[in-house]
Amino acid sequence: MNGAESLVRSLLASDVEVCFTNPGTSEMHFVAALDHVPGMRSVLALFEGVATGAADGYWRMARKPASTLLHLGPGLANGLANLHNAKKAGSGVVNIVGEHAASHVALDAPLTSDIEGIARPVSHWVRSSSSAVDVGFDAARAVRAARTAPGQVATLILPGDTAWSMGGAVAEALAPHAQPRLDTGLVDQAAQALDGPDSLLLLGGSAMSAQTLELAGQIAAKTGCTLMSEWASARAERGAGRVAMAKVPYPIDLALETLAPYRRIVLVGARAPIGFFAYPGKPARLTHPEAEILELAGAASDLTATLDALVQATGAGGSVAHLAKADLPDLPPLGPLTPDSLAPLIARAIPENAIVVDESITSGRGLGAATTGAAPHSWLNNCGGSIGYGLPVSIGAAIARPDRKVLALISDGSAMYTLQALWTLAREGLDVTVVIFANRSYNILRGELSNVGVQNPGPRAIDMLSLDRPTLGWVDMARGMGVEASRVEDTAAFALALEAGLSTPGPVLIEAVM
Amino acid sequence: MNGAESLVRSLLASDVEVCFTNPGTSEMHFVAALDHVPGMRSVLALFEGVATGAADGYWRMARKPASTLLHLGPGLANGLANLHNAKKAGSGVVNIVGEHAASHVALDAPLTSDIEGIARPVSHWVRSSSSAVDVGFDAARAVRAARTAPGQVATLILPGDTAWSMGGAVAEALAPHAQPRLDTGLVDQAAQALDGPDSLLLLGGSAMSAQTLELAGQIAAKTGCTLMSEWASARAERGAGRVAMAKVPYPIDLALETLAPYRRIVLVGARAPIGFFAYPGKPARLTHPEAEILELAGAASDLTATLDALVQATGAGGSVAHLAKADLPDLPPLGPLTPDSLAPLIARAIPENAIVVDESITSGRGLGAATTGAAPHSWLNNCGGSIGYGLPVSIGAAIARPDRKVLALISDGSAMYTLQALWTLAREGLDVTVVIFANRSYNILRGELSNVGVQNPGPRAIDMLSLDRPTLGWVDMARGMGVEASRVEDTAAFALALEAGLSTPGPVLIEAVM
Repeated sequence: MNGAESLVRSLLASDVEVCFTNPGTSEMHFVAALDHVPGMRSVLALFEGVATGAADGYWRMARKPASTLLHLGPGLANGLANLHNAKKAGSGVVNIVGEHAASHVALDAPLTSDIEGIARPVSHWVRSSSSAVDVGFDAARAVRAARTAPGQVATLILPGDTAWSMGGAVAEALAPHAQPRLDTGLVDQAAQALDGPDSLLLLGGSAMSAQTLELAGQIAAKTGCTLMSEWASARAERGAGRVAMAKVPYPIDLALETLAPYRRIVLVGARAPIGFFAYPGKPARLTHPEAEILELAGAASDLTATLDALVQATGAGGSVAHLAKADLPDLPPLGPLTPDSLAPLIARAIPENAIVVDESITSGRGLGAATTGAAPHSWLNNCGGSIGYGLPVSIGAAIARPDRKVLALISDGSAMYTLQALWTLAREGLDVTVVIFANRSYNILRGELSNVGVQNPGPRAIDMLSLDRPTLGWVDMARGMGVEASRVEDTAAFALALEAGLSTPGPVLIEAVM
Repeated sequence: MNGAESLVRSLLASDVEVCFTNPGTSEMHFVAALDHVPGMRSVLALFEGVATGAADGYWRMARKPASTLLHLGPGLANGLANLHNAKKAGSGVVNIVGEHAASHVALDAPLTSDIEGIARPVSHWVRSSSSAVDVGFDAARAVRAARTAPGQVATLILPGDTAWSMGGAVAEALAPHAQPRLDTGLVDQAAQALDGPDSLLLLGGSAMSAQTLELAGQIAAKTGCTLMSEWASARAERGAGRVAMAKVPYPIDLALETLAPYRRIVLVGARAPIGFFAYPGKPARLTHPEAEILELAGAASDLTATLDALVQATGAGGSVAHLAKADLPDLPPLGPLTPDSLAPLIARAIPENAIVVDESITSGRGLGAATTGAAPHSWLNNCGGSIGYGLPVSIGAAIARPDRKVLALISDGSAMYTLQALWTLAREGLDVTVVIFANRSYNILRGELSNVGVQNPGPRAIDMLSLDRPTLGWVDMARGMGVEASRVEDTAAFALALEAGLSTPGPVLIEAVM
């Protein structure tokens, strides 16, 4: 067996069964191995950022890693931004990156680059295999690294000769690394701190599952503390019948105001709130200067066990969590599409058990409140802030859960970064309804100009934040990649298009002109 | 003056007058400075790989650097693949990358990443400014680095506080670094080596200008040596009235066969020929094992002076270089579009003084021979092998030389990597005619499968190299980004569309279905 075949068989042995690919010459033996070893689903992307983002979305919904297959340093580089997002989301990803044969690297061929150097800033684990014999075991180690809680980015670099040489061996799955142990002393401290409305239990990471949220809800019911989630969650279970909570707002002034009341803050899977950016004259830490912050358990911990212990320590075992009631907002009046009119329409349309991928940026700021009582759903946010995550993540989510509808809410500026994802949606026939919020600007940056202290920006500055010259035609672009699409300009047309999209299998795109 | 303004004024003082931008919050002060300091043309791209590729193209045609403005580590990451290509092409680029304020980096905000780590693999020069006072001088140093022969990638990282703090000072342009000195002993050796048809003068880099090629042509006329250029040139002056030569072929077997006759090889601006990839059982060095290779001058040297000296040493001063005659290939018969039928049609249509950006890959393998006697033109190749270079480079070339027509010859698979470039072509009204070779496959990889020893690939392997499910609709995609487009399927329609495109100002796209 050559190294390439041992790779595919070892990945399968470690329960990696999807590969998001954009291969090149140096990966041709892996392509051949994927061809004749059954069991690995290969999904082609026309740009590597689509492949890495899809792997991120797959992890979030499958709770196990997918692999990517990327072509040398530049192929990895094209996938880097969405690996950054995956890293910040705590998503496990196994990158397989081809490299020139060892003897060829020294010659500095055109495609030669420092692949390990490119990988390191976004990877928790990087390794280059040194022979075909090692490839199987290295693959098993890469998967173990990717599965390390909460989920990590592992990059395995395979020189061409390790792929084509014989001597490959299939490695069994490795037992996962242990999670950090629960500190019972901290649990008692946290139980003391959570007392009344000026105490805050701030949740993040895997604490956003339905089960852990219910534990948190019991604690809040017993102690009177406030529940809140981080500004973004990789995956939060929300909607009717779930424990609802606000999240830390993105806009700096609103975040400061929201967090000001809390003097005792317990973190479970969350990090102490900081500003997304530094703003001149404004604090970086968003909590009250006198707030005591207790990090009970980080994202790598077993957060179910942590919240179980906290329920015991607070005596909340018999308390009943407050669950969101099924409650849909009223229909907005017939009229133009705005963040305020879109939010209730989307809330009313979310199908039961849907996966909502949210890259709506400023257009979606009303969505959180509007969807609290919507049909139960999973809500996926961008945790790394690099735009272009939404369409690729939708691919991975849909492949992980073909039984669930995916609703992708994407701002036009963000969608342009990785619009090649539309082609993969069509190719794989994925059940994803894409809403493009066509406000035709980098709207968030107009606010940020003033946040960083730039007053009265001139026409050249505004022009650099405007996407309306020419207007982006999403219907044309989607059709060009095989995705059915329509453009809507008012609330009635949007509601009809959204209902039609969600009730039709396969991908559909709706351009919502704002 | 704040640091941001000192940056813009210092770049202008160093004759950098174009900025390809995709800014974010951390760059808002630079956006404001670009707004109120006159003289810098800002060109918005909707994806950073478009901005960096445009800067590459700008350098090739303007012979001076443009700047890019990129948002933090992920923004730089998105531009990395085309910076790799720029680095391999010897193009000078000044990247300006925003960073969080120094105090904020330690907090590990969502967009925090190791920007220097991301920059280093593709940059010759990397620096983070430490205060507003330093920004101007650091900018001047970045431009000097970018101008270091043959052209380098310089990345200047500017924390937010260096942009918004006062104390900025405008720096004057710095004198460029000296080029390596000519080794007269080597010149004499080279003059001895070049003697008869089994000796080869292999040219690359700035030796591909019209003037240097004529010097090389005199040497060939005098010594009987063969002239050849590297497999790819950042910019080669070609066509009627220029010294014509073959280039080292990309396909490994053809390259070995082409280079086999030569026993003495002199390199001027070129590197010793190696395989693009390593192939099992085939040599990495493409020259005959007994060939003596003399590196007379590398890409960083003054190649005009080098060839002048070699003319003297060979006594070729009175010799007359053989120049290509104006000679257009015959019209192909009416019929389907193939590499063989497209090449003569393109050769006949190239306008005088056109800039041809070539990312035609397998579809363009007939172009070199067919265009030898075409109207004189500049021909730009991808030197780094990372696809997606062509459309962005066309933007930069068109902005550098608004007086010249740009003809971009792009394979469909390559074009998909950076198709956002079409929007910038439309926005700026650039005079670029884009031909998309729609063969609907990663055709080169089908050949490479067999080159690396994979025989009889199965349907799943073939499927991973096929772009026909669904078919990419280039006319729709182009129109969606504001570019006029048409689809053609036979030789007559292609000839008409190409003539119409080249005779109309502004961007046009022709989808050539093969």
